[in-house]
Amino acid sequence: MDESELIRRYFAPLGAKRSDVSLGIGDDAALLAVPVGCELVMTTDVLVEGVHFLPGAPARSLGHRALAVNLSDIAAMGASPSWMLLSLILPQAQEGWLAEFCAGLAPLAERHAVALVGGNLSRGPLSITVELAGLVPAGQALRRAGASPGEALYVSGTPGDAAAGRRLAHDTGAQAHAAAGQATEGADPPSQDADRSALVARFEYPTPRVALGAALRGLASACIDVSDGLYIDAGRMLGASGCAARIDTALLPISQPLCAFAAQAGWSAEYTQQLVLSGGEDYELCFCAAPERESALHALAATLGERITRIGAVTAGAGVCLTSSNPASAPLLEGATFDHFGR
Amino acid sequence: MDESELIRRYFAPLGAKRSDVSLGIGDDAALLAVPVGCELVMTTDVLVEGVHFLPGAPARSLGHRALAVNLSDIAAMGASPSWMLLSLILPQAQEGWLAEFCAGLAPLAERHAVALVGGNLSRGPLSITVELAGLVPAGQALRRAGASPGEALYVSGTPGDAAAGRRLAHDTGAQAHAAAGQATEGADPPSQDADRSALVARFEYPTPRVALGAALRGLASACIDVSDGLYIDAGRMLGASGCAARIDTALLPISQPLCAFAAQAGWSAEYTQQLVLSGGEDYELCFCAAPERESALHALAATLGERITRIGAVTAGAGVCLTSSNPASAPLLEGATFDHFGR
Repeated sequence: MDESELIRRYFAPLGAKRSDVSLGIGDDAALLAVPVGCELVMTTDVLVEGVHFLPGAPARSLGHRALAVNLSDIAAMGASPSWMLLSLILPQAQEGWLAEFCAGLAPLAERHAVALVGGNLSRGPLSITVELAGLVPAGQALRRAGASPGEALYVSGTPGDAAAGRRLAHDTGAQAHAAAGQATEGADPPSQDADRSALVARFEYPTPRVALGAALRGLASACIDVSDGLYIDAGRMLGASGCAARIDTALLPISQPLCAFAAQAGWSAEYTQQLVLSGGEDYELCFCAAPERESALHALAATLGERITRIGAVTAGAGVCLTSSNPASAPLLEGATFDHFGR
Repeated sequence: MDESELIRRYFAPLGAKRSDVSLGIGDDAALLAVPVGCELVMTTDVLVEGVHFLPGAPARSLGHRALAVNLSDIAAMGASPSWMLLSLILPQAQEGWLAEFCAGLAPLAERHAVALVGGNLSRGPLSITVELAGLVPAGQALRRAGASPGEALYVSGTPGDAAAGRRLAHDTGAQAHAAAGQATEGADPPSQDADRSALVARFEYPTPRVALGAALRGLASACIDVSDGLYIDAGRMLGASGCAARIDTALLPISQPLCAFAAQAGWSAEYTQQLVLSGGEDYELCFCAAPERESALHALAATLGERITRIGAVTAGAGVCLTSSNPASAPLLEGATFDHFGR
């Protein structure tokens, strides 16, 4: 099966149908109608085997993640995603792999009304590049720059889950390899198994906060998506804003599965906090807002069914400082880093 | 030097400055102003080491080609290029390589007023992905579909040069390797050397026909860029148009360097014709136009300093048939293919 047949079978049917696509897959380029009053938003991100994922990672998860990481960038701008290009470099055209990849990518594209309008398939070492374009009312995009001292610092969701899930997915992969050649080992208790699955799912199928990002326009003063870790990415946003921040580690949201699994697995509180602050791959939004927005933000989060947590305050100066309002738990040292996979 | 430092040093200064870039490199995504009355054009193409170029290929040429192949797609739509994203996967961050790569990419981006607005650097097996966006007056883009029986078939430039140059570049690479370990061999005569250099330059530094593509709006009925070979790509355009074509092999334009080098190297006329029809990597435009456009097209080509050649006629039916108006030179068999590198 050659490139054009693979595209016809797997990629041409993929994604949302949009009336603003004048010409999609199959010509030298796509033609797209940008509404008057909107700015175009463009981003790209890549997943490379051996760097962003291990050999043998499930193709369905890769299909989901390749789009999710780009949706998260669009969300951080307060924009709505529209059109994607997909460049897939594959060692060989395995139809089973392609079908699984598309089964991961297609539902996410449809859920966010993203049309696949072009791309290419090439032979080579496995990597997946998605370029995603979106739209935002002109002049209303969220940026990293814009925060001011006195504002509050927020994060969506529960960072740390994905980093824990990544570790567990890799451990599980190693265990599976080991089990294939050795005696079967004792299984985890069922509750730990459910927590483990929940955490692995947060890594393999991250949820980009697209609706939340769009709803933050006019409320947030600055926004960034958390891909490299909350501590690092908050620092980038505040650096771009010319401000500093204090994160209160006692306020960091920690999910029930992460709490429970960490307790059962004997992970230290320090290690769990490192996952939350520096684990990365969260694809949550970190943003700043004036204190008087607090109730509007919580009403918004409730409407959208999203969790947002005030984790600190924007201050004058530079850098992100960790403090704790709970005297029993000292924060990590400022600038502590974690064994960050792949960047 | 980490990713953000490399981006600051090599990529942030690269490309044209455009007033329609509201926000460029350095946030989660770029923000761009699309003028009212224009459609957005989006394309992407990738160069993979070992597939689209050999290990050790000159970085300067790769920088040029990575953008040129995308500019050619934009040209084939009759559009003007605007904004690019660059995703570079590199085994290691060699500054000498990056400087050469940018020295190939930057002048071409500036010549065509393309701003670099984002992208990423990742570690991994070498590949280069460019996503290029452009603008075209709404409803006026050229497409592959649109040709009608009775129209004339044209090609720009002199296809075949790049394929000859690719062969010579690879032979030269092989000779250089051989010479390093063995006795020096006799050099080519100077005139052959100049022809060889001209052909290699056509492969390493192809010229996308951007101004010609834009000028063909309203004149051409259908257009495609010739990347996989004139015969194959003409067939794609005519297939999309629901037509057939006859190419008169006696009309095919052959460059002076290709003629001269082929004669000196003892390449057969059949081999040279295969290079012209099926060699690929030409990045010329192949297009159709009504017969009454002939003089307007030639006036346009003269104004732009471009060569265009009528090579055949659009007919009813399907497929591309090769004929020859020169009884002394029979055409190749229809559908003959050449040792095509990499697709």
